[in-house]
Amino acid sequence: MNSDIRKLLEGVKEGTVDVDDALLKLKVKPFEDIGYAKVDMHRKVRQGAAEVIYGAGKTPEQIIGIAETMKKNGQETILVTRLSQESADIVAKAHEMTYYKDGRCAVIGKMPEPDGIGKIVVATGGTSDIPVAEEAALTAQVLGNEVVRLYDVGVAGLHRTLAHMEDIMGASVIIAIAGMEGALASVIGGLADCPVIAVPTSVGYGASFGGLSALLSMLNSCASGVSVVNIDNGFGAGYLASMINHMNAKKEAK
Amino acid sequence: MNSDIRKLLEGVKEGTVDVDDALLKLKVKPFEDIGYAKVDMHRKVRQGAAEVIYGAGKTPEQIIGIAETMKKNGQETILVTRLSQESADIVAKAHEMTYYKDGRCAVIGKMPEPDGIGKIVVATGGTSDIPVAEEAALTAQVLGNEVVRLYDVGVAGLHRTLAHMEDIMGASVIIAIAGMEGALASVIGGLADCPVIAVPTSVGYGASFGGLSALLSMLNSCASGVSVVNIDNGFGAGYLASMINHMNAKKEAK
Amino acid sequence: MNSDIRKLLEGVKEGTVDVDDALLKLKVKPFEDIGYAKVDMHRKVRQGAAEVIYGAGKTPEQIIGIAETMKKNGQETILVTRLSQESADIVAKAHEMTYYKDGRCAVIGKMPEPDGIGKIVVATGGTSDIPVAEEAALTAQVLGNEVVRLYDVGVAGLHRTLAHMEDIMGASVIIAIAGMEGALASVIGGLADCPVIAVPTSVGYGASFGGLSALLSMLNSCASGVSVVNIDNGFGAGYLASMINHMNAKKEAK
Amino acid sequence: MNSDIRKLLEGVKEGTVDVDDALLKLKVKPFEDIGYAKVDMHRKVRQGAAEVIYGAGKTPEQIIGIAETMKKNGQETILVTRLSQESADIVAKAHEMTYYKDGRCAVIGKMPEPDGIGKIVVATGGTSDIPVAEEAALTAQVLGNEVVRLYDVGVAGLHRTLAHMEDIMGASVIIAIAGMEGALASVIGGLADCPVIAVPTSVGYGASFGGLSALLSMLNSCASGVSVVNIDNGFGAGYLASMINHMNAKKEAK
Amino acid sequence: MNSDIRKLLEGVKEGTVDVDDALLKLKVKPFEDIGYAKVDMHRKVRQGAAEVIYGAGKTPEQIIGIAETMKKNGQETILVTRLSQESADIVAKAHEMTYYKDGRCAVIGKMPEPDGIGKIVVATGGTSDIPVAEEAALTAQVLGNEVVRLYDVGVAGLHRTLAHMEDIMGASVIIAIAGMEGALASVIGGLADCPVIAVPTSVGYGASFGGLSALLSMLNSCASGVSVVNIDNGFGAGYLASMINHMNAKKEAK
Amino acid sequence: MNSDIRKLLEGVKEGTVDVDDALLKLKVKPFEDIGYAKVDMHRKVRQGAAEVIYGAGKTPEQIIGIAETMKKNGQETILVTRLSQESADIVAKAHEMTYYKDGRCAVIGKMPEPDGIGKIVVATGGTSDIPVAEEAALTAQVLGNEVVRLYDVGVAGLHRTLAHMEDIMGASVIIAIAGMEGALASVIGGLADCPVIAVPTSVGYGASFGGLSALLSMLNSCASGVSVVNIDNGFGAGYLASMINHMNAKKEAK
Amino acid sequence: MNSDIRKLLEGVKEGTVDVDDALLKLKVKPFEDIGYAKVDMHRKVRQGAAEVIYGAGKTPEQIIGIAETMKKNGQETILVTRLSQESADIVAKAHEMTYYKDGRCAVIGKMPEPDGIGKIVVATGGTSDIPVAEEAALTAQVLGNEVVRLYDVGVAGLHRTLAHMEDIMGASVIIAIAGMEGALASVIGGLADCPVIAVPTSVGYGASFGGLSALLSMLNSCASGVSVVNIDNGFGAGYLASMINHMNAKKEAK
Amino acid sequence: MNSDIRKLLEGVKEGTVDVDDALLKLKVKPFEDIGYAKVDMHRKVRQGAAEVIYGAGKTPEQIIGIAETMKKNGQETILVTRLSQESADIVAKAHEMTYYKDGRCAVIGKMPEPDGIGKIVVATGGTSDIPVAEEAALTAQVLGNEVVRLYDVGVAGLHRTLAHMEDIMGASVIIAIAGMEGALASVIGGLADCPVIAVPTSVGYGASFGGLSALLSMLNSCASGVSVVNIDNGFGAGYLASMINHMNAKKEAK
Repeated sequence: MNSDIRKLLEGVKEGTVDVDDALLKLKVKPFEDIGYAKVDMHRKVRQGAAEVIYGAGKTPEQIIGIAETMKKNGQETILVTRLSQESADIVAKAHEMTYYKDGRCAVIGKMPEPDGIGKIVVATGGTSDIPVAEEAALTAQVLGNEVVRLYDVGVAGLHRTLAHMEDIMGASVIIAIAGMEGALASVIGGLADCPVIAVPTSVGYGASFGGLSALLSMLNSCASGVSVVNIDNGFGAGYLASMINHMNAKKEAK
Repeated sequence: MNSDIRKLLEGVKEGTVDVDDALLKLKVKPFEDIGYAKVDMHRKVRQGAAEVIYGAGKTPEQIIGIAETMKKNGQETILVTRLSQESADIVAKAHEMTYYKDGRCAVIGKMPEPDGIGKIVVATGGTSDIPVAEEAALTAQVLGNEVVRLYDVGVAGLHRTLAHMEDIMGASVIIAIAGMEGALASVIGGLADCPVIAVPTSVGYGASFGGLSALLSMLNSCASGVSVVNIDNGFGAGYLASMINHMNAKKEAK
Repeated sequence: MNSDIRKLLEGVKEGTVDVDDALLKLKVKPFEDIGYAKVDMHRKVRQGAAEVIYGAGKTPEQIIGIAETMKKNGQETILVTRLSQESADIVAKAHEMTYYKDGRCAVIGKMPEPDGIGKIVVATGGTSDIPVAEEAALTAQVLGNEVVRLYDVGVAGLHRTLAHMEDIMGASVIIAIAGMEGALASVIGGLADCPVIAVPTSVGYGASFGGLSALLSMLNSCASGVSVVNIDNGFGAGYLASMINHMNAKKEAK
Repeated sequence: MNSDIRKLLEGVKEGTVDVDDALLKLKVKPFEDIGYAKVDMHRKVRQGAAEVIYGAGKTPEQIIGIAETMKKNGQETILVTRLSQESADIVAKAHEMTYYKDGRCAVIGKMPEPDGIGKIVVATGGTSDIPVAEEAALTAQVLGNEVVRLYDVGVAGLHRTLAHMEDIMGASVIIAIAGMEGALASVIGGLADCPVIAVPTSVGYGASFGGLSALLSMLNSCASGVSVVNIDNGFGAGYLASMINHMNAKKEAK
Repeated sequence: MNSDIRKLLEGVKEGTVDVDDALLKLKVKPFEDIGYAKVDMHRKVRQGAAEVIYGAGKTPEQIIGIAETMKKNGQETILVTRLSQESADIVAKAHEMTYYKDGRCAVIGKMPEPDGIGKIVVATGGTSDIPVAEEAALTAQVLGNEVVRLYDVGVAGLHRTLAHMEDIMGASVIIAIAGMEGALASVIGGLADCPVIAVPTSVGYGASFGGLSALLSMLNSCASGVSVVNIDNGFGAGYLASMINHMNAKKEAK
Repeated sequence: MNSDIRKLLEGVKEGTVDVDDALLKLKVKPFEDIGYAKVDMHRKVRQGAAEVIYGAGKTPEQIIGIAETMKKNGQETILVTRLSQESADIVAKAHEMTYYKDGRCAVIGKMPEPDGIGKIVVATGGTSDIPVAEEAALTAQVLGNEVVRLYDVGVAGLHRTLAHMEDIMGASVIIAIAGMEGALASVIGGLADCPVIAVPTSVGYGASFGGLSALLSMLNSCASGVSVVNIDNGFGAGYLASMINHMNAKKEAK
Repeated sequence: MNSDIRKLLEGVKEGTVDVDDALLKLKVKPFEDIGYAKVDMHRKVRQGAAEVIYGAGKTPEQIIGIAETMKKNGQETILVTRLSQESADIVAKAHEMTYYKDGRCAVIGKMPEPDGIGKIVVATGGTSDIPVAEEAALTAQVLGNEVVRLYDVGVAGLHRTLAHMEDIMGASVIIAIAGMEGALASVIGGLADCPVIAVPTSVGYGASFGGLSALLSMLNSCASGVSVVNIDNGFGAGYLASMINHMNAKKEAK
Repeated sequence: MNSDIRKLLEGVKEGTVDVDDALLKLKVKPFEDIGYAKVDMHRKVRQGAAEVIYGAGKTPEQIIGIAETMKKNGQETILVTRLSQESADIVAKAHEMTYYKDGRCAVIGKMPEPDGIGKIVVATGGTSDIPVAEEAALTAQVLGNEVVRLYDVGVAGLHRTLAHMEDIMGASVIIAIAGMEGALASVIGGLADCPVIAVPTSVGYGASFGGLSALLSMLNSCASGVSVVNIDNGFGAGYLASMINHMNAKKEAK
């Protein structure tokens, strides 16, 4: 690690690198050499796990190219998010992959074995929240997590929520996804004793104001251990959940 | 009833009232004579029940005077809402009354016997919602309802809510009062099978935005049978709950 | 009632059920056995009345299947809300039904006889509010209520409102539906002496902001007995109105 | 009129003014010489009527000085708006005047005789709107209008509004002032056949959001002939009402 | 006028109408008989001037029918607003009319002679505001006003505004129409000495937020005599301007 | 675990508990017996760590009482949040404690030894964010975490942020606290490879709108691994950070 | 300059122009003669540089005509903004030009040589911001500036920003363009020592609210030297940047 | 410049500094050594000009200390912003200074000679905007600029604006400060041919919403060359104006 800067400094020491040249290089790229370089904006994926391509706004051709580069660099599993069926059909001709229609995601390569602390529960208030939920769930899976899906367990029918107490209480991390009043996050946050990542969705009508109502509701949650990501941001929730579920790796790395 | 208009018409019939004069009178005051005249803006209280004085913005002297007029007209029970301790002390010198500090209300005269269909449950998410809840509860009591108070049963500690299932399922009407995320209305709405009146409160901080978050959350409730009144409007909720709990009277009156 | 839990406990007592098994069952499904089980999210419909299928986001095939299940379970009347003409044409091939174009609803089976306390008045400010009004009216009818429709009685032409004083003053419950300034709820709330359920609509342009203006106006109503449901939520208003109009059943059940 | 520019041009013609000097003067002050010069920001008051001093943010001493200048210039009547009791007491020592506590206004000199087309009706929804109403009414009076005050005629008690049909239908201009749901403007706009100036007030609580709810409601009014001024802007409404009520002068001036 | 009520009363006097029957009739329709009945929601048009049909949401067939009724009742000029080219083509087959594409309006019959106090100036900030401006201008014309159009005189090019000082200072009423920052109303309000009706438009992008920015700007105008109508409400502005410009008729009617 | 329910069921089996009695108990308190019972709303604190009392809205006497109860139950460390200096002085007479003025918190008993995975970094954009930061930091400490404070490292002076790269890259969890533009969360999220909890603060003026600007900015963060809690919610962030930093305990418990 | 007014005044002096006529002319068009006359709303372009046609809402034919007029008047370079590919194809038949697809702009004539103080850096947070950035960059180029493009240097990958420190620190003016959290402006503002013009973009989803989040974030920037233009207003930013980068011309002109 | 890094590298070259030590130092503080170190958050003030202390939230003692440090480092002029009279009185005992009450600023040391390109015009819409204007003006003066103050030149009295055409057209940079409708920025932007920095103020009432209305209005300005800073941010505007007015220094430095 940091070997590029070290090389540079050793070059200065040995006289093979000019002081002025080193000065310039150090000023303009202090971090590039420390390992952040990324083909894409989805960053900092753990070693051994998948890379992620954010599909929105990219042509199928661009996606094919990026994936190719990743594979050449030894990447075994690649997740492509926000990918339409049409683009998927084109990408599928270049790369063997599985397309998950519900979550508008594709996985190139094979799903890794789960190696996290425990299970990640992905719960939704209604069936309309499923696209966001699947984006979260597939992101978590591709990053090496076992995922339990609890869909349509909204609090207006509390028995549906409570019927899954075992899963909720046994989870390592919970992703609570809901539109409209967004009360799911509070109720689950009150039942569970693990971090709860709340994802408001733009599902709804009238005073749901495109997810604003659910967003505010979740931010105001009185339950401890609840935090919130952007409206419809399934990827962000899945990514963060995986990060938390791999805190053991963090420890072991020390 | 309607005797003033009847008198006018009979006067016309008997020739003691001019047609033109009658025409004018009828045009300018068609309703005043049908019984709406009110000393105060709190309207349409059922016969036999209490009158209500909205205390905010009234001097103690004005309140004393209005109460006096009401009592002269045979009113046995009078509720004064939004009454500060200071004003209450002054009014108490003129009228025998009980001051309820928590709900900032006073009752002049005695509480009527409950004569509604069933019990009205007043539930709050937290202890800070109690002033609004007491305004609702006292309004309901003074209008002839039996009230069950379930305070601090917020959904972030779902066991507290569920511990009162008997009350919730046996209620005639429920008033669900909460600030912050306002999820209480949805959860209770999902459990109960009676009308639920949701009251957002201005309690909270940050993204609660003075009750806006709870208000939106309650309006978006996926539970059926839930409707919403203005932020902090305990009186309105208590009044409507009483109206619903006396629908039997409505029937019998037919 | 509660017979499943009782059976379980008696099984434990008699030794035919293992303590551990009972423990698990009790924790995961405390309510499912108490009668909440629903084919759909529209909950708690009174015995003998109709079931409701929320059509939005469901395929005609799904609707056909759900309706079939309901009918097998002895359900005689089923309301399908938010149903497009196209979907209705497909569903109509499987189930005999009437499609109400204005309210985008269909009724499978026959309308029940009204058995509520009185009449439910459904009033709108303009003609553009009629789709929401019809959703409310049909919901109320299918749940066993007599409905009086007062359409286009907005307060900017007050004579139109006042021309229906008899209906307004004789109503058991009133649903006041309006977009733009939403003043209808206040005016009707001031005239009537029964619960008024206000429904803001997204009808309008400019500063109506998709129903926000009407929503705020209705929440601020100075008239007592007025409460508000979500923008365009005709079903919710019709459901709640029916609940209130059947408070007699509540009483008799006691 | 325009005599300064004329003089300048004639100076050029006669050779007493240099072309370059004239050029500069004309460019920098084209309007100052045409009669707009004002001691204060309240502009363009008709000839013969009162001048107005906006009292907010001015010291009593400044007000005394401005009034003095005005009087020296022959002004007989001066209105001071947004004037506290404390400031009024000080100003009263320097100028003979009448202080109107309800409207927080003072009139120096005597009220002019009304010379408008007809009467200006100032109506409020509640008693808390009276300060704004009095600012409007006094502004109108001091500008030469006969004013009819209809206070506390809010639409939640429609009989109170209708009891004043004669005044409403006979008005030349109506100023409708209301907080909370602001429905008064629509109802009066629907009844009257003259211009209605709506003034939202910041009176209210909860979802009134400091007058925003009333403002939106009034802007969305379906009644024709209604326009809106800023929240609590009684002066602006009174000024505009007077302008409209003096359209005859406009005609005659032609 | 009022002849129905008079007839009723005379019937009572003569004994041909029962007192109770009269009582009922009077209560339910106090205004309908006093002359407000309208084929359409555009109300209270002065005698002799045009009737108006609000075209939005009406089928060409409905418009044809309404116009027919109006014409049968002796109406010579009819304005149809918010009428698409397609609908206009159909209506034009049944009624001789002129379609004004820019303002999306049609006039059936001939334009009346102007009979107002003076001229109505319709000014816009940019060319994109012209559709709203034409709706306002045509409404004013059809109601008997002479209209001066000043388009694209936005304040960012102040010379364009000032070039029309003569028109602005000579106007009877000014309608100032602008999107984006809406400053036109303030600048014109500061220059003119007549009522200014400000119309915000939804023209713009980004922080114009669909007209909200212009709306707020206009409400905050420091210029006296300015009032505001709803975003894009050209008809309302034209109607109100005509009302003000016919205040002389008001006077003469007295 | 679940021993109370087990006992109950064994009682039923042995005949010492009546079936009906068991039925009732199970229905009304299914969760209370599973370990949720709390003296206060701060829930689910890990075994061995501190209890928390939310001080806002509680009298010093109430706090003294609650703390006493906690201590009797063997609690060694108690955190009191949102505690004013005045209240602290009173509580300090009853319980030995340390008051932290900056964070408006008190700790009764001694700080526990850190036993988490790694260090929690608490970073703020400015010095005005310190009260929120201290609430977060003390919460984390009292729950058994080592905390590194990086205050006033806002991104407008990026060198200040970058000067602490070692801490940022070595953190187990980071709490990023900022008002105004809230960019700190994005920048730190981009640098770190651990969960980042963003806390918007109400610090600022003008368009910061009480923390709304920072809140929106943080929710929109393009950096992965960032989630957000309510404005000024230092406690919530500290609690969640501790939960994540103790994920090892979660693992070991399995 | 100002020759028209001078001619007029000299005419008055020589007696060839009547005083009254001059008076009128001076009042109505004081500025038109001083050189503001513009074919289009894009104003005040420096001498020698390009003219600009705002293409939105103009037909290709209109654009062709305006460009023709400009060319006849000696204009060598013309920028057309917000021009679709379709319109460009038509315009290209009449005028030789280069169409820049990314920025939806066309340049008729040749790019001028840069003559500003230094370089203008145009930086974007992501690739989706490029259309706005290209509009800014092309505007700056066509007005005589050297432009450095730094695209996709968002702060969530800080190394990408820092890799361009040389450009950032050497810039004369920087245009920082970003959607979502808009933190780019603050970070660049903190690094650079030149004016930074921030452009929020409507790129994003959920709580980005069409650019509102980025807008607020940029307005709250704690970095000095940062100011903000409207959402997506690339032209405005490029124009202002050029103005600042030509302040030397300003000086020399004195 | 950059001498610290150079020294470090030369140390490495000469063998007096260890490669690992250099590596660490370079990574953690890459910028601190390049000259950004600041005593305060007001950054990057030009050489020879004044330093600035942001007074809000600092004790008089802290201000005294910071100023002392600055003076020791040779700073001749120091501006303290947001300083109350009370604090100023205390600071004045330690440092000789001038306190400017209107702008709540103090200057320690003497005002520098203006050395910018031209004059900076500071214009306000009303007198209530003066505190913000003075903060801007004093900031500009202390940074070496000649300032022209044009106060109370709001567009509602356009003649007042136009009376200062000479100043507006001769300015190097203009700061346009206004509350309420904020139209001043557009009008000045349309008249001037230099950069205009718009500052919305929180002055106003009702729909000014604490400066939001003016802010939106300014962002929507159709005039080119206008950009906006935060509400009430006089310092930011003065700082940026100075930066632009010293672009010559920028050039010469090259």
